[in-house]
Amino acid sequence: MRILISLVSSSTSTGLHLLSVSRRLHTKISPFSTLIGLKPPPAMATSEDSLRRSLAEKQSSIESQGNTVRALKAANAEKATVDEAIEKLNALKLDKSVMEKQLQAAVNGNGPDGSINKEAFRQAVVNTLERRLFYIPSFKIYRGVAGLYDYGPPGCAVKSNVLSFWRQHFVLEENMLEVDCPCVTPEAVLKASGHVDKFTDLMVKDEKTGTCYRADHLLKDFCNEKIQKDLSISAEKAAELKHVLAMLDDLSAEELGAKIKEYGITAPDTKNPLSDPYPFNLMFQTSIGPSGLSPGYMRPETAQGIFVNFKDLYYYNGNKLPFAAAQIGQAFRNEISPRQGLLRVREFTLAEIEHFVDPEYKSHPKYSEVADLEFLMFPREQQISAQSAKKIQLGEAVSKGIVNNETLGYFIGRVYLFLTRLGIDKDRLRFRQHLANEMAHYAADCWDAEIESSYGWIECVGIADRSAYDLHAHTEKSGVPLVAHEKFSEPKEVEKLVIAPVKKELGLAFKGNQKKVVEALEAMNEKEALDMKASLETKGVVEFYVCTLGENVSIKKNMVSISKEKKKEHQRTFTPSLNVFRFPPLVAPIKCTVFPLVQNQQYENVAKIISKSLTDAGISHKIDITGTSIGKRYARTDELGVPFAITVDSISSVTIRERDSKDQIRVDVEEAAPVMKSVTDGHRTWADVWASFPHHSSGSAED
Amino acid sequence: MRILISLVSSSTSTGLHLLSVSRRLHTKISPFSTLIGLKPPPAMATSEDSLRRSLAEKQSSIESQGNTVRALKAANAEKATVDEAIEKLNALKLDKSVMEKQLQAAVNGNGPDGSINKEAFRQAVVNTLERRLFYIPSFKIYRGVAGLYDYGPPGCAVKSNVLSFWRQHFVLEENMLEVDCPCVTPEAVLKASGHVDKFTDLMVKDEKTGTCYRADHLLKDFCNEKIQKDLSISAEKAAELKHVLAMLDDLSAEELGAKIKEYGITAPDTKNPLSDPYPFNLMFQTSIGPSGLSPGYMRPETAQGIFVNFKDLYYYNGNKLPFAAAQIGQAFRNEISPRQGLLRVREFTLAEIEHFVDPEYKSHPKYSEVADLEFLMFPREQQISAQSAKKIQLGEAVSKGIVNNETLGYFIGRVYLFLTRLGIDKDRLRFRQHLANEMAHYAADCWDAEIESSYGWIECVGIADRSAYDLHAHTEKSGVPLVAHEKFSEPKEVEKLVIAPVKKELGLAFKGNQKKVVEALEAMNEKEALDMKASLETKGVVEFYVCTLGENVSIKKNMVSISKEKKKEHQRTFTPSLNVFRFPPLVAPIKCTVFPLVQNQQYENVAKIISKSLTDAGISHKIDITGTSIGKRYARTDELGVPFAITVDSISSVTIRERDSKDQIRVDVEEAAPVMKSVTDGHRTWADVWASFPHHSSGSAED
Repeated sequence: MRILISLVSSSTSTGLHLLSVSRRLHTKISPFSTLIGLKPPPAMATSEDSLRRSLAEKQSSIESQGNTVRALKAANAEKATVDEAIEKLNALKLDKSVMEKQLQAAVNGNGPDGSINKEAFRQAVVNTLERRLFYIPSFKIYRGVAGLYDYGPPGCAVKSNVLSFWRQHFVLEENMLEVDCPCVTPEAVLKASGHVDKFTDLMVKDEKTGTCYRADHLLKDFCNEKIQKDLSISAEKAAELKHVLAMLDDLSAEELGAKIKEYGITAPDTKNPLSDPYPFNLMFQTSIGPSGLSPGYMRPETAQGIFVNFKDLYYYNGNKLPFAAAQIGQAFRNEISPRQGLLRVREFTLAEIEHFVDPEYKSHPKYSEVADLEFLMFPREQQISAQSAKKIQLGEAVSKGIVNNETLGYFIGRVYLFLTRLGIDKDRLRFRQHLANEMAHYAADCWDAEIESSYGWIECVGIADRSAYDLHAHTEKSGVPLVAHEKFSEPKEVEKLVIAPVKKELGLAFKGNQKKVVEALEAMNEKEALDMKASLETKGVVEFYVCTLGENVSIKKNMVSISKEKKKEHQRTFTPSLNVFRFPPLVAPIKCTVFPLVQNQQYENVAKIISKSLTDAGISHKIDITGTSIGKRYARTDELGVPFAITVDSISSVTIRERDSKDQIRVDVEEAAPVMKSVTDGHRTWADVWASFPHHSSGSAED
Repeated sequence: MRILISLVSSSTSTGLHLLSVSRRLHTKISPFSTLIGLKPPPAMATSEDSLRRSLAEKQSSIESQGNTVRALKAANAEKATVDEAIEKLNALKLDKSVMEKQLQAAVNGNGPDGSINKEAFRQAVVNTLERRLFYIPSFKIYRGVAGLYDYGPPGCAVKSNVLSFWRQHFVLEENMLEVDCPCVTPEAVLKASGHVDKFTDLMVKDEKTGTCYRADHLLKDFCNEKIQKDLSISAEKAAELKHVLAMLDDLSAEELGAKIKEYGITAPDTKNPLSDPYPFNLMFQTSIGPSGLSPGYMRPETAQGIFVNFKDLYYYNGNKLPFAAAQIGQAFRNEISPRQGLLRVREFTLAEIEHFVDPEYKSHPKYSEVADLEFLMFPREQQISAQSAKKIQLGEAVSKGIVNNETLGYFIGRVYLFLTRLGIDKDRLRFRQHLANEMAHYAADCWDAEIESSYGWIECVGIADRSAYDLHAHTEKSGVPLVAHEKFSEPKEVEKLVIAPVKKELGLAFKGNQKKVVEALEAMNEKEALDMKASLETKGVVEFYVCTLGENVSIKKNMVSISKEKKKEHQRTFTPSLNVFRFPPLVAPIKCTVFPLVQNQQYENVAKIISKSLTDAGISHKIDITGTSIGKRYARTDELGVPFAITVDSISSVTIRERDSKDQIRVDVEEAAPVMKSVTDGHRTWADVWASFPHHSSGSAED
């Protein structure tokens, strides 16, 4: 299982208000190895570099002492002298052998006492996980397929627990809008997002057999092998190889090819020469429908399904920002060479969040709930100056500008809470800021949460400010503007320039050239138009250059009307039908509404307390503290089939109304959530509840 | 959303015990239209057939009366006489027009009062569902893709509610083994299952433009159009068209092609002639890995992932039958022409169950819980004799043999409870038995649960006895025997025939022919071998025909040993490692174990009561009432990271032990489930519980 929680806050520009910042939190939870209590041994403190240097010195001492011994023997020196020299040589050789063991231990990650290494530790865990069917190589009776795994019963249970906690911790807690889109995706969508052209890895082929390898993996394996197995390489060579490893993700096809040639790397199985690296698209391709003419792909991420629905989701949210949309589903990547067990697989479950914000308002109402958290952070500056991660209080990181803003900080904090509550050891969890060269050109800032596993520090959360990149891309390709209009509490008037050529007059004056003149007039920018307006008002006529005609024409006052018009912002209006869906409480998408009967600070507070306890109990609900009449507030949710309504009409007790019978009971404030829980999870029926609580017969809450 | 719950009970033969029956329950829940409270108007009782006959009679009366009028006019009859005849003609025409309206209403499914028809009803529901984002045509900013839909926030919530109820009602309640397999499937698996060769629909192409159509849809549309719009067709013609509609699924490519030609059906858009029907495979094809040499498909159902894991799941279940495996996941079908909204789509979520049983034991321990249920059943016999579905008590249906056995009956009852608890109207739900020609050749009996929707009665549950078809197919293709060995409470000895040719003696006697003689001896069946053994014991020598030599040879007593050997049944032994996974309660796949401290009927009853209340509270657990020591019982589940153990050591209270601290508390029996609920859903910590209950310090429960 791999889980990704990606959170993009993004919104785009309109004529009214420029909204152009977006950010993206992106979380991968690495699989079971990070979730379990068994701990791999701590990493060695001994410096590998100094060991290599000492070993090289020791080797030259041995050679020199060997020469001494040979010289003494050649000179027929006294036996005692020769023996002493030999003894010294043997002592040096013993030292060297101890050092080699230390170095081997250091590069393997073994403890100084020679305890179990990471590789052996992982193997022990993997054996148990496979034997108890946490996971199973898929289709193993057919010899399996690399990079595809099944979850057996305990694996499914863990996955289901993690996903339902994800829904509780993020979707329900933050009132996110969940969507569920198909995996099969038409080419146009993934062309716009850039995946068709750029979602590639570099591949090399065995020039004789045609076997494919991932180019960076071959280089990586070569470097690691050299560092770990060849104890004779110099500290300088080791440093060079480590530098190549560090730069691996940034190498171009040409640079990768050059390194492969330089190191003489050949095909691992045959030792044949390799082709130059070339890009291989990682998407599984297919064809939609029977014609064979509609190419499609299995989605490589779930985010695009959210972006293409931006307009509808924004509308669903009452045309208000900010809001977040979330999706859990399968993603597919046709990896060239899957590896690292469940970490790099060809199909996995993703859980992504895209959070759309107005860049003018980056504060977050619940920020204070996470500001006191303190955990390992690894800012860009510490990385560049070769320091290590250190504990920082989140609030301090935000106030010092290490983390850019409150919203970003809030989600970092929430991800920290999510991961630690799942059982991730907080000493093996750090938030690392991306270096400038790691980010896409449109991204402003990125943070990765990384978990230390037996494979080292593995990225599991990415927090990226993506600006409005994705929405812009789909707007451009689909022709449908994916933009957010600011919601004004009062309808707002805006001024708009209107150039209205009077075609009749222009036709009389310019005959066959009328069209070109009209187009030139309409193409004026605001300044040109206002200048013309001023001139026409004062002089009545103006000379105007029409470039498609290559000449000036005379425009008279009656030929064009230029004005700035006031326009009210119009929004898509919401007209409920009279349909009431009679979902049983078990099925209903939203279990209840919470309304104060009248606008009143005390009632609103009670409504918020009840809302919080409903969230804690995992009950989906809508709270509406607008002053709209109760009847209208009912109508807004009737179409969603909400079975219960809680109306706050006192500070100690509230009424609960059942949709179909319209019966109402009265319960104490603190009983509201438990009663809702029992009737929505099926442990009590409305009839049970009706028999247990006082009835509320007043029509007051009915409006 | 489409949900399939398919339940296959299946197991296969071993040398020990023949297990060869399987059955398959297969459930599709049709989408929102069946889940909502709004009801379409009831179907018309008026007979369409009799209306057509009356209309035809009326028409001939009109023609005859028209002739009368013309004759009277031609004969210059008296005006009063002519007027009277005309008046009669007009009255007949008026009657006809009333009848036409009645017939139109009948074929449209309108109420006799002309109330809203099914089509209009559906449109109203669909409009609301789309406007409130229950669902959205996928990729609609790119003009969408037929047969792909997104779920918006309320749709996701409904889907998630239904799936979690499915998990509670089936997986948890029945202790099913859930698995989660990839969608990407290599060709070999789907070749074995028959999908590569047979998962097809018949397609025709516009001979000029190449546009594709599903052949049966064109024929269906033609027939429906004719029946609904052409009021002039005879009752006989209408009956013929209805017969074609009823037979649609059974028509071969040739028969379909012949009907299309007979009715002169052309391409709907162009009226061009159509090609002959030919099969189109409905699987989305792709390629796995970078070589392009490994074809794969997106799975069309989730069941195959369960079948290929049969061996491991059987082992996981302690090598015992019966057991059920379940899977929820995406399935993909590249429909030629998707239609009927969410009913026939190209990608959907499936929830399938395969129940593997020993055919010798078809009783079910919980059968009595459903035997009293009474609901609409539509047995084969009623269908053939043109009766309608009737209410039958499930227990009666099983005892009369209408439903084949208790296990089948139990799952029919569970499906009935599942659907009605989701809100399906029981008057619009019926269980229909398959006719003999509807079933696959290997299936013994099938029942469909059908829901009446605005599209008519739609299949939503299939209960099919598939025998061991799927397991046999994968056994044959993979070479891995997917068989169940009966589990004996005591290790059991079985007798096995052993024919051991003595190669040395045979070599001396037959030289170069030795190999052929050996093979012939080994190929003897049990009777032949025992006859030879008897002869050798009495006579010491026997004549034996070796067909590969074409002659008799003399076999002496010292040349072959024939015996019946006793063999102990051997099972894969389960050796737990010493790994203990420290999953937090939130994540742990199994939250607690329930053990009676010693074997004792009273303690076992208490353990079962606690187990039931844990199931009701949705807490996954294992109950172990074997006499094995507590220590061993702990060891069995330690590898699964179970955080709590409930030990029954009295009939009024029990101990709860926490895995990591090994601390134990004592709680009353009825408090056990609520305490477990609060600590596993995170509302209390172990420390909270530790502070609230008496501590249990005796080592007695530690073994």
